[in-house]
Amino acid sequence: MSQETPVVPPTPRALEESFPRSHKIQVEVEHGAARLRVPMRRIHLDGDAPPLDVYDTTGPQGCDPREGLPPLREPWIRERRKSSDGNLSQMHYARRGVVTEEMTYAAAREGVSPEFVRAEIARGRAILPANVKHPELEPMLIGRNFLVKINANIGNSAVSSSIEEEVEKLQWAIRWGSDTIMDLSTGSDIHATREWILRNSPVPVGTVPIYQALEKVDGRIEELSLELFLETLEEQAEQGVDYFTIHAGVLLRYVPLTAKRLTGIVSRGGSILAKWCLAHHEENFLYTGFEEICKLMKRYDVSFSLGDGLRPGSIADANDEAQFAELETLGELTRIAWEHDVQVMIEGPGHVPMHLIKENMDKQLEACQEAPFYTLGPLTTDVAPGYDHITSAIGAAMIGWYGTAMLCYVTPKEHLGLPNKKDVKDGVIAYKIAAHAADLAKGHRGAQERDDALSKARFEFRWEDQFNLSLDPETAREFHDETLPAEGAKTAHFCSMCGPQFCSMKITEDVREYARTKGVTAEEALEEGMREKSEEFLETGGEVYRP
Amino acid sequence: MSQETPVVPPTPRALEESFPRSHKIQVEVEHGAARLRVPMRRIHLDGDAPPLDVYDTTGPQGCDPREGLPPLREPWIRERRKSSDGNLSQMHYARRGVVTEEMTYAAAREGVSPEFVRAEIARGRAILPANVKHPELEPMLIGRNFLVKINANIGNSAVSSSIEEEVEKLQWAIRWGSDTIMDLSTGSDIHATREWILRNSPVPVGTVPIYQALEKVDGRIEELSLELFLETLEEQAEQGVDYFTIHAGVLLRYVPLTAKRLTGIVSRGGSILAKWCLAHHEENFLYTGFEEICKLMKRYDVSFSLGDGLRPGSIADANDEAQFAELETLGELTRIAWEHDVQVMIEGPGHVPMHLIKENMDKQLEACQEAPFYTLGPLTTDVAPGYDHITSAIGAAMIGWYGTAMLCYVTPKEHLGLPNKKDVKDGVIAYKIAAHAADLAKGHRGAQERDDALSKARFEFRWEDQFNLSLDPETAREFHDETLPAEGAKTAHFCSMCGPQFCSMKITEDVREYARTKGVTAEEALEEGMREKSEEFLETGGEVYRP
Repeated sequence: MSQETPVVPPTPRALEESFPRSHKIQVEVEHGAARLRVPMRRIHLDGDAPPLDVYDTTGPQGCDPREGLPPLREPWIRERRKSSDGNLSQMHYARRGVVTEEMTYAAAREGVSPEFVRAEIARGRAILPANVKHPELEPMLIGRNFLVKINANIGNSAVSSSIEEEVEKLQWAIRWGSDTIMDLSTGSDIHATREWILRNSPVPVGTVPIYQALEKVDGRIEELSLELFLETLEEQAEQGVDYFTIHAGVLLRYVPLTAKRLTGIVSRGGSILAKWCLAHHEENFLYTGFEEICKLMKRYDVSFSLGDGLRPGSIADANDEAQFAELETLGELTRIAWEHDVQVMIEGPGHVPMHLIKENMDKQLEACQEAPFYTLGPLTTDVAPGYDHITSAIGAAMIGWYGTAMLCYVTPKEHLGLPNKKDVKDGVIAYKIAAHAADLAKGHRGAQERDDALSKARFEFRWEDQFNLSLDPETAREFHDETLPAEGAKTAHFCSMCGPQFCSMKITEDVREYARTKGVTAEEALEEGMREKSEEFLETGGEVYRP
Repeated sequence: MSQETPVVPPTPRALEESFPRSHKIQVEVEHGAARLRVPMRRIHLDGDAPPLDVYDTTGPQGCDPREGLPPLREPWIRERRKSSDGNLSQMHYARRGVVTEEMTYAAAREGVSPEFVRAEIARGRAILPANVKHPELEPMLIGRNFLVKINANIGNSAVSSSIEEEVEKLQWAIRWGSDTIMDLSTGSDIHATREWILRNSPVPVGTVPIYQALEKVDGRIEELSLELFLETLEEQAEQGVDYFTIHAGVLLRYVPLTAKRLTGIVSRGGSILAKWCLAHHEENFLYTGFEEICKLMKRYDVSFSLGDGLRPGSIADANDEAQFAELETLGELTRIAWEHDVQVMIEGPGHVPMHLIKENMDKQLEACQEAPFYTLGPLTTDVAPGYDHITSAIGAAMIGWYGTAMLCYVTPKEHLGLPNKKDVKDGVIAYKIAAHAADLAKGHRGAQERDDALSKARFEFRWEDQFNLSLDPETAREFHDETLPAEGAKTAHFCSMCGPQFCSMKITEDVREYARTKGVTAEEALEEGMREKSEEFLETGGEVYRP
C-alpha cells in the first residue's frame, strides 16, 4: 500500500459512540469440521426486555487503516486454490454442489440454510460478490430471497476530495449500514485510493473500470480499446475489486434512440461507450469482447454488475425504447456470463414515476431470468434537487418490495455536488429505511422483530431503548433532547409532544390496567354491561397521569 | 385580537428571498359579471425558456401580522347571507346547482372548470373547506380528482412554544407549500393562539376541538359532555376554523379491540374518547350527538375531518379489527353528515407496511363512498425515529397515488419532540415531494411540466433555472456551492460530480450535434453505415469538452 504522499485516514470512532449499549458478537457456525465466526450487533435493552441481534456491516473494529483489516478468507481461498480448475467463482462451486465457507457465513447472517444459499447462487438468482484477492471481505448475499441490500457510492473526482476522505467515507457508510460500496473515483490517484479502500473494506467493493481506462488514454474516448480495458480489469481484479459495472449493453443501434430524449444519456459510462460507438461506427467493444471479459472475471470471481448506460435521466424519459432495448441485451449477456459460471447482477434506473416502477421490475425478471436487480433509486420526481435521497427512497422502497435485491443510494447532493460525510450518512439512512420497508412488505422472516421491539419500547416509555433500537440513535436522542433536555425526561412516562395530560399511550395503559385490576378482560367488562365497574373506575382511576 | 401580553410575530422574509426570480401573479377569471383574481407564482427562466407558473399557497405578502390578511371572501359571503336558509356549506350550494365564487376561484387554481368542481363537491368526492368566519381564506380543494394536497401540523403544547413561534411556523409552512394547517395547540393560550393563526392564514385551518374542551374541565376526561363540546365548537367556529377533527367513530364496543395491540391507542383524541366511554360505560357522545354537531357545522360551513382515533401506532397493529371497525362507522357518519350537506373528509393511518397500504385506500373508498381520504403518512417502518418524514413520505406518496386527497405531514421530530421551524420545512418539503410524485403517477394534467422544465434546465446546464424551478432553491444552490462555490461554476457546462472530462450530458450534446451538423438524423447516419462520417467526427469532435 505504498504511495508517494503519506496517507493517514483517521481511526474511526468506537462503535459504541454511534450505537450506545450495542456490542458486536460473533455467532459460531459449523462448516464441515471447522467453525466460522459470524458478526452481529447485539442491542441491550432495559429491564427484562431481551436483547435484539441485528445484521452488522461494520466489520472488525479498532484496526489501523494503514495495516488494513485481517484477511478472514485467506485460508479458505488458499485451500480452494489447490484443486481449482481456474474458475474460482462462487457460482461455479454452487453449480457443482459445493457449499463454500462464504456461503455458510452469509447463510448465517441471513438466518437461512447454507444449502438454500447454494441453490440460489447456482440458479443465478443471488450473487455472493467475493473476489479471491479481497480476503478482508465478510461474505454477503445479493438476491431477492434475502434481505434487501444497499450500496453507497464514494470516490473522489478530478475536482475535489482526497484519499483520506474517501477511506473515512467508506468507514462512515458501513457504520450506518451500507452493504457494499462503489469507488467511483476519477483523476490521478485512482489506483492508490482503491487500494486503501479495498484493504479497509469488509464489504464488497464495486467499480466502473471504464473510468480508469479513460484516464489511461487521457480522456480521449475514441482511443479506448478492448485490450486496454482488459488490462484495466486485470489491474483492478488483482487489487480485489468484487464487482465491475460494465456497460456492455449500450449497442451502436440503440444510441440514436436517445437523441429524441429530454435528457439524452445521463450515465457516465453509457455516454462514454455511446461516443466510442459513434466515433468508430462499430459495435461496443464491451459487447463484442464480452466472452473475453468473462474469462478474466472467473479467474478472480469478480461479479458483473451489468450497467444500464441508457437509463432515463428524467421522468420524461422513463421506460422508453432505448432503456428497454438495452435491458434485453443485458439479458442476453447474462446468459453468456452464466455459461462461464460468472455471477451477474443487473443495474436499473434512474428516474421513474411511481406508476411505471413495477414494469421495470417485471421486465427485468423476465429478460434477465431473475438475475438480481440493482437499482439507482429510482427517483419518483425531478423537482426536488437537494432532497433526492427522499425522491428516490420512495421509488427504492417500492422497487425493493417488487423484488430488487440491492438499492444504490442517492444522497441529498445528487445532481448538485459530491457528497460529504453528512450526505453519505443521510443517503445511507434513507436507503436503510427503504430496504427495511421493503423487507417488511415482502414479509421477510424476522424483519418485523426490530419494529416490534422499538414500538414496544416506545409504548412503554423506555426512551433509551427506543433510541438505541433505531437506525440512528444519536439523532433520535438529539431530537428528543431539543425539546426536553433533562435526563429525567428520558424516564418520564410522557413525552414532549403532548405533555402528561394528553398522553394517549398513558391512557391506553389505564385502559389495560382497568381490565387487569377488575379481574376480567375489558371485553367481558363491556359485554356484560357492568356499569358498577365503570363507576369504580371513575373513583379510582379518574386521573390520567399519576406521578 | 386583543390579549394580555403583546404578541409581535416577525414579518416574514420577502418571497423572493426563498424563491429567486419568482414573483406572484394574479390570474383574472370571470365569475358571472365579476372578475376574481387568483394567485400563482411565476418562475422566470433564462434566455428563451418560457416562464413556469406554479400553484401558490403563500397568500398575500407584506401584511402586518397584527392587522391580519385582507378579507378576500367578505363581499361574497355577505351577499350570500342575504338569501341563506341557514345552511352556508359549499356542498349545500353545490347540490342546488350553484357555483360559488369559492368554486370558481379554486377551479382556476386547479385548471379545471367551475362546473366540474361543483359536481365533485355535490357528490361528496371533494371538499372546499371554507368557514364563513374565515374570510381571509384563499379557496382550495381537497379531492382525489384534484392535485394532492398536504397539511402541516403546528401548535404549542403545555410544555413548550409561544404564539409568536406558532404564527411564524404557519407562515413558514405555507411558504414551502402547505395547503392547509392544523393548530394542535393545548395549554392556556389556546384561544389567542388560534385567533392569531386564523387572521394570518390564507389556507384552511383545522383543529381538534376535544383538546380545548378538555382544557375547560382541567383535564378530567370523565367530565366531558356533548354540551361542553358544542360550546367549544361554537367558539372555534365563530373564530373561523375551517375543519374539525372529530373522533366520533371511537365506539364503546371497539375500545376492547385495542387491548391486545402492541401499541394500544395512539391518537390523542381517540384515547380521550376511549377513556370517556370506559369511565361512563356509555356510547361516545360525539357519536350519539352527531346530528347536533352537524347542525352547528352547517351554519358556518365547517367541514368534518372524521378522526381515526383507533389508527395503528405501529407496524404490528396495522389494518387490524379495531381500525377497520372504526372506518365502517366513519362511513356511516359520512352519510349522516351528507344528509345535512356538511362537507366531510376521513382521516387515515398511521403506521402501515407497504403491502397493506392499498387495502386502506380501497376500504376507505368503499366504506365512505369516496369522501376524500386524509392520511397521516403512513409510516412504512417503525425503526427510524428522527427520520419519520422519510419513513412516512414513502407511504404518503403511495397512498396519494392510490387516491388519498390530502397528506398530513410528519416531521423528523415525530415521536421525539415538537417541530421547530427547520422541522416544519423538512416535513413540508418531504410531503410536497410525496404529493407531487403521486400527481405524476396519477397522470394529473400538467403535473409533469415542472419536472420537464427542471430536467431540461439541468440538461442544458442552466444551473440557476434548475435551482429556481426546484421545491427549495436555497438548499439546491447551497449544496451546489459547497462543492463549486465560484459564480462561474453556475454557468459552467459541466458539474462538480464528474468534472468536464466525464460529463455525460456534454457527450449527449455531442451526439446530437453530430447528427445536426451532418445534416442527417443520427439514425440515418447509423443505418446507412456512413463510416466516413464517423471519421470526420473523429477529426473534428474528438474532444468532449470545448471550453
